[in-house]
Amino acid sequence: MGMKAEIIAVGTELLLGQIANTNAQFLSQKLSEVGIDVFYHSAVGDNRNRIREVLQWARQRSDLLILTGGLGPTEDDLTKDVVAEMLGRPLVEHPPSLEKIATFFSQRGVAMTENNRKQALVVDGSHVFENRFGLAPGMAVQDPGRNVWYVLLPGPPKEMKPMVEMFVLPFLTSLLPSTQIIHSKVLHFYGIGESMLEDQITDLIRRQNNPTIAPLAGEREVKLRLTAKAASRQEAERLIQPLVDELYRRFGKYIYAEGENARLEQVLVDELRRRGETVTVAESCTGGRLSGTLTSVAGSSDVFPGGVVSYSLATKRDVLGIPQSLLEQYGTVSRQTAEAMAEHVQRLCRTTHSMAVTGVAGPNELEGKPVGLVWIAWRLGGKTHAREYRFAGDRRAIQVLAVKTAMFKLIQLLREKG
Amino acid sequence: MGMKAEIIAVGTELLLGQIANTNAQFLSQKLSEVGIDVFYHSAVGDNRNRIREVLQWARQRSDLLILTGGLGPTEDDLTKDVVAEMLGRPLVEHPPSLEKIATFFSQRGVAMTENNRKQALVVDGSHVFENRFGLAPGMAVQDPGRNVWYVLLPGPPKEMKPMVEMFVLPFLTSLLPSTQIIHSKVLHFYGIGESMLEDQITDLIRRQNNPTIAPLAGEREVKLRLTAKAASRQEAERLIQPLVDELYRRFGKYIYAEGENARLEQVLVDELRRRGETVTVAESCTGGRLSGTLTSVAGSSDVFPGGVVSYSLATKRDVLGIPQSLLEQYGTVSRQTAEAMAEHVQRLCRTTHSMAVTGVAGPNELEGKPVGLVWIAWRLGGKTHAREYRFAGDRRAIQVLAVKTAMFKLIQLLREKG
Repeated sequence: MGMKAEIIAVGTELLLGQIANTNAQFLSQKLSEVGIDVFYHSAVGDNRNRIREVLQWARQRSDLLILTGGLGPTEDDLTKDVVAEMLGRPLVEHPPSLEKIATFFSQRGVAMTENNRKQALVVDGSHVFENRFGLAPGMAVQDPGRNVWYVLLPGPPKEMKPMVEMFVLPFLTSLLPSTQIIHSKVLHFYGIGESMLEDQITDLIRRQNNPTIAPLAGEREVKLRLTAKAASRQEAERLIQPLVDELYRRFGKYIYAEGENARLEQVLVDELRRRGETVTVAESCTGGRLSGTLTSVAGSSDVFPGGVVSYSLATKRDVLGIPQSLLEQYGTVSRQTAEAMAEHVQRLCRTTHSMAVTGVAGPNELEGKPVGLVWIAWRLGGKTHAREYRFAGDRRAIQVLAVKTAMFKLIQLLREKG
Repeated sequence: MGMKAEIIAVGTELLLGQIANTNAQFLSQKLSEVGIDVFYHSAVGDNRNRIREVLQWARQRSDLLILTGGLGPTEDDLTKDVVAEMLGRPLVEHPPSLEKIATFFSQRGVAMTENNRKQALVVDGSHVFENRFGLAPGMAVQDPGRNVWYVLLPGPPKEMKPMVEMFVLPFLTSLLPSTQIIHSKVLHFYGIGESMLEDQITDLIRRQNNPTIAPLAGEREVKLRLTAKAASRQEAERLIQPLVDELYRRFGKYIYAEGENARLEQVLVDELRRRGETVTVAESCTGGRLSGTLTSVAGSSDVFPGGVVSYSLATKRDVLGIPQSLLEQYGTVSRQTAEAMAEHVQRLCRTTHSMAVTGVAGPNELEGKPVGLVWIAWRLGGKTHAREYRFAGDRRAIQVLAVKTAMFKLIQLLREKG
């Protein structure tokens, strides 16, 4: 028997469509991971009567109400007031929070207003959650008569998320009756479509129970989350392992990582660092996006010294040093040009390996080549590989696919090389 | 007097956090633009009783219920069934939709199953909305006893959004009592913080009525939406203009564009194209992100021939041709190196202007320079400008701020130059 939870976002900006309610998604994921089922989401504006009505309805159908937003200093921030009133409890000052707010303002040499002081108020009897990235603390308070918990969290995701990970989930887990734990493992796939993958695991999905299999949406990637309930983490891992083995047996070459937040670029940088090798890139139609993706990884400078964005014919000639005759003979979108880009940039930047991308990202065709046609070349040591792709989608989708495919294939080639 | 609307998403995947409810944001925006106020959002799983309970509650407090999701062919798709049952009306086949589904399957040489046929059912008496990008039609149906409208829309955003723009909004607008229109104008700011801007327009916000002013969140940018209600678009524009003038008077140099979806990179590419000029970039700590941002604009090849990602000292020396002695004397994060990068890359790529970025994106300091310290240089024709910045945030935030600041300042410099 678990808790029946619902997530209630407070804030008129949601109802005007100024922001998406990504908090509800984050909280749903996290709660489901610890075995708390979420039955409803709702959003309501900064209006005392409507917030009260939503809560009165919610407490009849759920036993854990998680509210986000409305904890700030302005008159529109009403969440605490309404909850305190419903529970018949006063708002009281929380000294550590007040001290933090006072310090914040004195360090900036700004006077603390009465409004800011309001952020340090909590519903009497609350369990208080520290806000490491903002001023308003979170809190959990129980209505003992109804056996309903209210959890109040700040609205800004950069404050709410760490608070949930650090303090709220451990607190909620401690309320759960059973000692069962939920453990899950995520496998990351590239190069196989979601529907193709799902088609080939219908048998596994049909007989799922413990562990369960859930496909997760990613941008042009597929992830599978395998989740087991058990008395211990080891026991859960033992339950999951046969399914992992079966998935590797069926799709091994498409699986590029295990883990919660794997990214192709991180896996590639790690693989190169492990080998003590380096890579450079020459990009045409991806226009810097491949370099930018690699350098989004902290510490990528160990394996990536930079590269060339050779977007025009002149740059391919003048910066990379590719003969104009080759570019004119084969065209800038061709196997020969991709291979030459990979070879020239590797020589220029003196790296172990290189990647080169040239293609038509659109919206218009180029040199008679259709939108979506992309040549990618990889140079591993002294050997060049090249392949033609036909990517579908708009300009951005084509660029993203080219970048991900270039990285994924380099990971594959490095692993094959051993 | 307007309609009181609420948006109800149906789908267990939302409650598991597998996807974010971006449909609610989109619909809220669109409805507010036509003057329909949204008072609540909610999400409920694929469960007949819970969907019914949510609707029974919603029809008491709202007069327009917009449901998304649950129109597909599977047993979990229950939205139509529940609405039909609540209204006491049968589901009937909609011949044009059935024909479309039959054609879809026959073209693919696949037999149409009974489940697929279910997608052509609509609640009797509905106004049907064609689905141009999927098989399940949408519909609007009224409960005349309560004067409540139910609008049922498919869940996938790529089906729902065009249906709303093409068919649903015109239909809903036709239901509105008045002929008033809503018109708005968005001003885009860079280089001024949201709280700073709001502080300096409190007087304007306090006396807002028609037009209203709403700050919109952007990534490291601020936008203000000015919205007027009037009998015609011209009348609305006339109401908005004095406010626009006042904002330019106060913040002219921070306003880089007007319009719904302006982006710094688009404004910069347009400005360069208008002038018949070109730009190149040499990037160190932004690692390709500046080039990638420029080339995300379709047609950027007219003004941007490419550039160099000189992430390491060796690349700055070997590819850009900066003397090693200069790099060693001043360090790679310095005014002198930024200026040299801008000058060398401009010569290498033969462009009118250039930008160069070198700094410490973190997570670790570099050559004794702190994380967030970034030097940016701009070369306009024969003149070099450079400036030091201290950006706050994580690696990604520092990279994004450096990219946006480089582009914004180039726009400013070009405009000053005239």
